Amino acid sequence: MRLAIDVMSGDFGPRTSVPACMMALEHFPFLTLDLVGDPQAIQAYTSSLYHHRFRIVSAATTITQSASIGEALRGAVGSSMRVALEQVSSGLADGAVSAGNTGALVALSCKLIGCLEGIKRPAICAQLPRKDGCFFLLDCGANLTVSADQLHEFAVMGDALARGVGSVKTPRVALLNVGSEESKGNPVVRGAADKIGANKSICFDGFIEGHELFDSSVDVIVCDGFVGNVALKTTEGLALHLRDRVSMSVSRGWRRLFTPLTKLLLRKAVNWLNPRRYNGASLLGLSKVVVKSHGSANVEAFYAAIDCAIREVNAKLPQQIESQISQHSTEAN
Amino acid sequence: MRLAIDVMSGDFGPRTSVPACMMALEHFPFLTLDLVGDPQAIQAYTSSLYHHRFRIVSAATTITQSASIGEALRGAVGSSMRVALEQVSSGLADGAVSAGNTGALVALSCKLIGCLEGIKRPAICAQLPRKDGCFFLLDCGANLTVSADQLHEFAVMGDALARGVGSVKTPRVALLNVGSEESKGNPVVRGAADKIGANKSICFDGFIEGHELFDSSVDVIVCDGFVGNVALKTTEGLALHLRDRVSMSVSRGWRRLFTPLTKLLLRKAVNWLNPRRYNGASLLGLSKVVVKSHGSANVEAFYAAIDCAIREVNAKLPQQIESQISQHSTEAN
Repeated sequence: MRLAIDVMSGDFGPRTSVPACMMALEHFPFLTLDLVGDPQAIQAYTSSLYHHRFRIVSAATTITQSASIGEALRGAVGSSMRVALEQVSSGLADGAVSAGNTGALVALSCKLIGCLEGIKRPAICAQLPRKDGCFFLLDCGANLTVSADQLHEFAVMGDALARGVGSVKTPRVALLNVGSEESKGNPVVRGAADKIGANKSICFDGFIEGHELFDSSVDVIVCDGFVGNVALKTTEGLALHLRDRVSMSVSRGWRRLFTPLTKLLLRKAVNWLNPRRYNGASLLGLSKVVVKSHGSANVEAFYAAIDCAIREVNAKLPQQIESQISQHSTEAN
Repeated sequence: MRLAIDVMSGDFGPRTSVPACMMALEHFPFLTLDLVGDPQAIQAYTSSLYHHRFRIVSAATTITQSASIGEALRGAVGSSMRVALEQVSSGLADGAVSAGNTGALVALSCKLIGCLEGIKRPAICAQLPRKDGCFFLLDCGANLTVSADQLHEFAVMGDALARGVGSVKTPRVALLNVGSEESKGNPVVRGAADKIGANKSICFDGFIEGHELFDSSVDVIVCDGFVGNVALKTTEGLALHLRDRVSMSVSRGWRRLFTPLTKLLLRKAVNWLNPRRYNGASLLGLSKVVVKSHGSANVEAFYAAIDCAIREVNAKLPQQIESQISQHSTEAN
C-alpha cells in the first residue's frame, strides 16, 4: 500500500508530519509513502532506517489555512496538497493525507479524484468518543445545506465506514435533531428519517439529541455540515477549555502540591477525550481515500490520521460505499 | 412585582419548584408569587412564613413533556402552564416561569401573550459560561429555519438582554458559523452578517466558531434554532458525561482514597459548568417576560430561573427590545 502525504500543510509542517510518517513506516511493514513537499525541509526529519520505503515528491508551495477556496484552487498548481492528490488520481498512490485547508482539500479532491457515481460532493466524517468506544459524525462541514437524499447518502457512507473501519457488525445509525419524537425537526430531517428508515441495509435508530451524543450506543450520527461542524468544534472547544480549567484549578496555592496526583487520578478521564486519539476525518464519497488531519496535529495525532487512511484503503472503503449505494438505488427502483 | 409560576411541570413538580419559590420570596422582599397548579400538592411544600406573599391559583392538569405541540395546545385549557401564562396575559402577573414542554410553552406564549410588533416568533435564549463570565446563545430551538432578518432580530434581542440583565455596557455580538472568514457559511448567515454589521447600535464581532465559544469574550452569540439547540445540548451532554467520567475514574481501586480530595481540588472547575447556575432560558420577543426552566431542575436551578425572570421584569426587557427594534427600523427606513 502506498499513501501520498502532504507533509507541508498544518501548523507545524514537516516537523510533526514527517516523524509521524516514520512512525507509520515502523508500525506497518506493508506501507510505503510519498512524502510530498519541500525536499530539504523533509530530509531533516526522515530516518534512514526506512529510506527504501519512502520517496520524496517535490512540491514548491503550500496552500495557506486562511486562503479562500477560490484562491486555493487558483494557487494550487505545484502545492503539496495538490501534488499529493495527483499522486492518488494518477494511480501512483492508494490514498492521501493532508492537514491543510479543509475547503481546499474538499474542492481539490472533487476536481482531481472525483466523487463516486451518484454522489455530488463528499462529506467530512469525524470520529468522536462515547461512553464505550466511539462514533462517527458526518457531515462536519463540507455540505452546509443538504437535502433529505443527501442525509440518506451520509447514512449509507457512515454505515460503510463503521463496518469497514470501525469493525462494527451492524452499525446503529441516528439522525441528529432537536428532539427525539418523530414530529420534531425540520422537513429535511424528517424526510431523511423516512428515507433512512426505508433502507433495509441500515439499522436506523431514529433521532438523537445533542445531549445524548456521548452516552448513546449509536455508531453513526448524521446531520448537515453546518450542524456537524458546530457540534464537533463545540465538543473540541469545551474539552480543551475544561482541561485547561482543571489544570489551572490544581496549579494554584496549596493545590499545587497535588498536581502530579490529580494528573494521575484523572489520566483516564482526560485521555478519553484526547483529540489526538481521534484525529483523521474521512472525506467520504470520493472514489479514492482522502483523510484530513487537524491543522494543529502533533506527531501522535498525525500518525492517527495516517492510520485512519491505512484502515480505509485496507477496507476498500470507496468500493464498499459504491456497492451499497448502487444496491440501494437498484432496490429503490 | 408578581410572577406566575407553573409549579407542576418539570420532572419533579412542586417538590422542587415550590421550595424554590419560597427561597425567592425570602431573597426578594418586593416579590409576590402566583403558584399555579394542584392546591393540595402545592400546600405540602409552602412555608407559612410567606403566606401573605403568595397565592395558590388552581389548575387541574399538566401538559406532559412528550406531548406534541398540537396535543399540548388542544389539551392546554386548565393546565398549569396555560393558567400561569393567562395570569400574565390578563395583567395579573408581570412574568411567568415554567419547566414544562418547550414547544408548548413557545406556542402558548405566542397565542396568549403575543409577540412584540414586527417579531414573528420568540427566540429561546440560554446563558452559558465562558472563561470569564458568561454569554447568551440564541436561538436555542424555537426557530429551526431562519432568515437573515430573523438572525438580525436575534442579535438585537440578545444585545438588549445582555445590557438589561447581564449588565454589559456594550455587548459584543457574534454570529455562530463554520469559519471565521467573511466568505464562510451559507447565504443566510452571510446576509445576517451584513445586516448586523450595518446596525450601528450593535457592536458586531463577526463570525465565531464552535471551538471558540468558551474562550471568547463575546457576550451574545446568534444562530438558527437547530444549530443553537445542538450546540447547547452538546455542551450540556459533554459536561455531564465528563463529570460522571471524572467521578468514576476516582472511585475505583486505590483512587477511592482520594475521592474527597479530588472533589475539593476540582470544585471550582466543576462548578464553572454547573448547569444549575445557568438555568433559565428566556423567551425573547414576547410582549411580556416568560422564562423556561430546565425540566430536570432541582431547587437551586429552579430558583435561578425565577431569578432570571425577576431581572428581566426589573429591566423592562420587552419594552427595551421593542424600543431598539423600532429605533432600528426607523433608521433603516
